[in-house]
Amino acid sequence: MRKIILASTSSRRRHLLETLIGKNFEVKPASYMEDNSLFADPVQLVLHHSMEKAKEISRGLEEEVVIACDTVVVVEREILGKPSTEESARSMLKKINNQLVEVVSGLAAIDTKFKKININYEKTQVKIKLLTEKEIDDYIKTGEPIGKAGAFAIQERAAQFIEKINGCYFNVVGLPIYRLNIVLKGLGIYTLDYK
Amino acid sequence: MRKIILASTSSRRRHLLETLIGKNFEVKPASYMEDNSLFADPVQLVLHHSMEKAKEISRGLEEEVVIACDTVVVVEREILGKPSTEESARSMLKKINNQLVEVVSGLAAIDTKFKKININYEKTQVKIKLLTEKEIDDYIKTGEPIGKAGAFAIQERAAQFIEKINGCYFNVVGLPIYRLNIVLKGLGIYTLDYK
Repeated sequence: MRKIILASTSSRRRHLLETLIGKNFEVKPASYMEDNSLFADPVQLVLHHSMEKAKEISRGLEEEVVIACDTVVVVEREILGKPSTEESARSMLKKINNQLVEVVSGLAAIDTKFKKININYEKTQVKIKLLTEKEIDDYIKTGEPIGKAGAFAIQERAAQFIEKINGCYFNVVGLPIYRLNIVLKGLGIYTLDYK
Repeated sequence: MRKIILASTSSRRRHLLETLIGKNFEVKPASYMEDNSLFADPVQLVLHHSMEKAKEISRGLEEEVVIACDTVVVVEREILGKPSTEESARSMLKKINNQLVEVVSGLAAIDTKFKKININYEKTQVKIKLLTEKEIDDYIKTGEPIGKAGAFAIQERAAQFIEKINGCYFNVVGLPIYRLNIVLKGLGIYTLDYK
């Protein structure tokens, strides 16, 4: 069983990786700062970010497999960041209100022993229902939108705002499990061995 | 704030209802036994089951709002139950392998104070990837398929088997949050008041 390292600070990503391989991995957050202005194409952007994070954590290692992921929310070709204030959360919620938004994740896995790299991405369409001004205000009051890409957390209170999704749900939470399984298989790792 | 009762034994349903209204509800499991042979139409079946559960728990109450839900998995018009043995799990996993299955939930809410009833349903399509014999065997060995409708748990290890979904994710887990919000709104209940 290969030793796996997740290059992420996100407790959601850690939790999702546990559903795939149990607690058989280590967490080493990368210090790399994502810059959403680097590329206009979201796929190119998340692949770049996840690759940079995986490369940083791989440095000096010779045994482990390092996994990194980056997720962005896109509405009408605009990449939405993580709001830090109530005002920016409100403006973002107004942008996604009643829209079909796209959640795009990049995955990078580096096998530091056999010097192999596998990258891939996942896209999920998310239909946000028509929100009233009051619903937007009350959702902001819960504090949940702050620090969340696109100002919503599908696995928390915003669950009630999601009319439907088309694609992988776990991608929207922050780690596309189905795709990650394929990426790891490409490096010779069979996830059901990690029971 | 109206007092809400969830008529369910399922810890997954309890957890999902918490994402909608926090811990502001009580749980009272109904003793009603579901019978999947009652109707061939899954929508009719789950509406009947959820209505029976809600009616049972409502009896004698005059203040509370009672919520009940029933979820089934359908593949090629066959309603799949919950396997109790490894053999029945294997046979079910072979049926859903590489298929587009449909998850159907019925929701019933009874307002025992104002004598109002609201029922509704949700359908989600789930694409199961092509599983190898070894993957089916190894998944059965984890014990996860036993007792799960359709022999898989999307929020656990089977996450990696789900290529994509079309519809509400939470419906597949067992409580369609978006639809429940609408059902409660129909009874004059605004979920964001339950913060």
